[in-house]
Amino acid sequence: MKKIITVGREFGSGGREFGRRLADTLGIAYYDREIIAKIAERTDFSEEYVQNITERGPVALFPITIGRSLYPRENPVLEQSQTIFQEQSKIIREMSQKSDCVIVGRCADYILREDRPLRIFVYADMESRVKRCRERAPEEENLTDKELRQQIQKIDKNRARYYEFYTGRKWGDKRSYDLCLNTTYTDIKKIVPVIAKIFD
Amino acid sequence: MKKIITVGREFGSGGREFGRRLADTLGIAYYDREIIAKIAERTDFSEEYVQNITERGPVALFPITIGRSLYPRENPVLEQSQTIFQEQSKIIREMSQKSDCVIVGRCADYILREDRPLRIFVYADMESRVKRCRERAPEEENLTDKELRQQIQKIDKNRARYYEFYTGRKWGDKRSYDLCLNTTYTDIKKIVPVIAKIFD
Repeated sequence: MKKIITVGREFGSGGREFGRRLADTLGIAYYDREIIAKIAERTDFSEEYVQNITERGPVALFPITIGRSLYPRENPVLEQSQTIFQEQSKIIREMSQKSDCVIVGRCADYILREDRPLRIFVYADMESRVKRCRERAPEEENLTDKELRQQIQKIDKNRARYYEFYTGRKWGDKRSYDLCLNTTYTDIKKIVPVIAKIFD
Repeated sequence: MKKIITVGREFGSGGREFGRRLADTLGIAYYDREIIAKIAERTDFSEEYVQNITERGPVALFPITIGRSLYPRENPVLEQSQTIFQEQSKIIREMSQKSDCVIVGRCADYILREDRPLRIFVYADMESRVKRCRERAPEEENLTDKELRQQIQKIDKNRARYYEFYTGRKWGDKRSYDLCLNTTYTDIKKIVPVIAKIFD
């Protein structure tokens, strides 16, 4: 059984940690920011720009119907975003063909839909996400809880927009995943070996 | 670690099978229709009546605000439904205190919320649910696919109403569960021993 696992995740839910640990446990490749570097390598864009585009997408500027059908060729940012998405899709397909892997984010569940990967979505209550962000934040960062919550919400809103723009699906809707995992009361270190057993 | 597991499920998703197998694998009690029998035993209602009330609830007749606050004492069906819900809550609490168990449906995740059970929700695509229902239906049953789909939707609508009426939460919303499991492409027999490992 081929092990291709995609991990969607709410910001602060520990989805990246989950994905990395799962890849480690299964002894397979882990792809996250590596994809950004590869896109930058193959296009004329800097890693920062690619990162920015793939986190935010062009969607804030364009309602879907306009962005998709009428003026796509007339707007350079949208055009670049689409180039990046196409390159990203190609890279993700190549990576998944090369070897078993865990891919975090980047619409990988949709891009690889014909290969039927194990599609996992990781989420958590806001309070637990705020706590997790606090624990990982650099010491000099001093956002209030309210500011932190707003930041988390903003990042997720952008992720949802990006995902919905390119897949036509609702981000985080359980119907798009095989397994949704709430990390609010779950220890990621303990749940990873359990989930890994799916491939035994 | 105490093993109290609640299983919410879409009709036709295999949630009952999942719950029973999980209880078997863990060697713990399994409660589903037993609860109905116990309620009937302790009240003046027949099992059929209790079954009917706990599947459909009084909610179709009463918008939440009216049902809850203004006329509850004036309507015998609603009053009976509330008596049954209270008895059900008591029984579920007793059962979970007596021993480790899996409880399917019946708002158990909400009733036992202070004991923090492992809350699982089982769901599947409509097509796969229709297929599962067909496989289990008595031979003489001859609904068309369309009729079967409508029946499935109706049952789930009633479950959602009942759940939302008594818990104030949205039925099937991933935030209310620790784990949501899509059985569309998942073999229940294979996933049960995996999930059981959570308690190792």
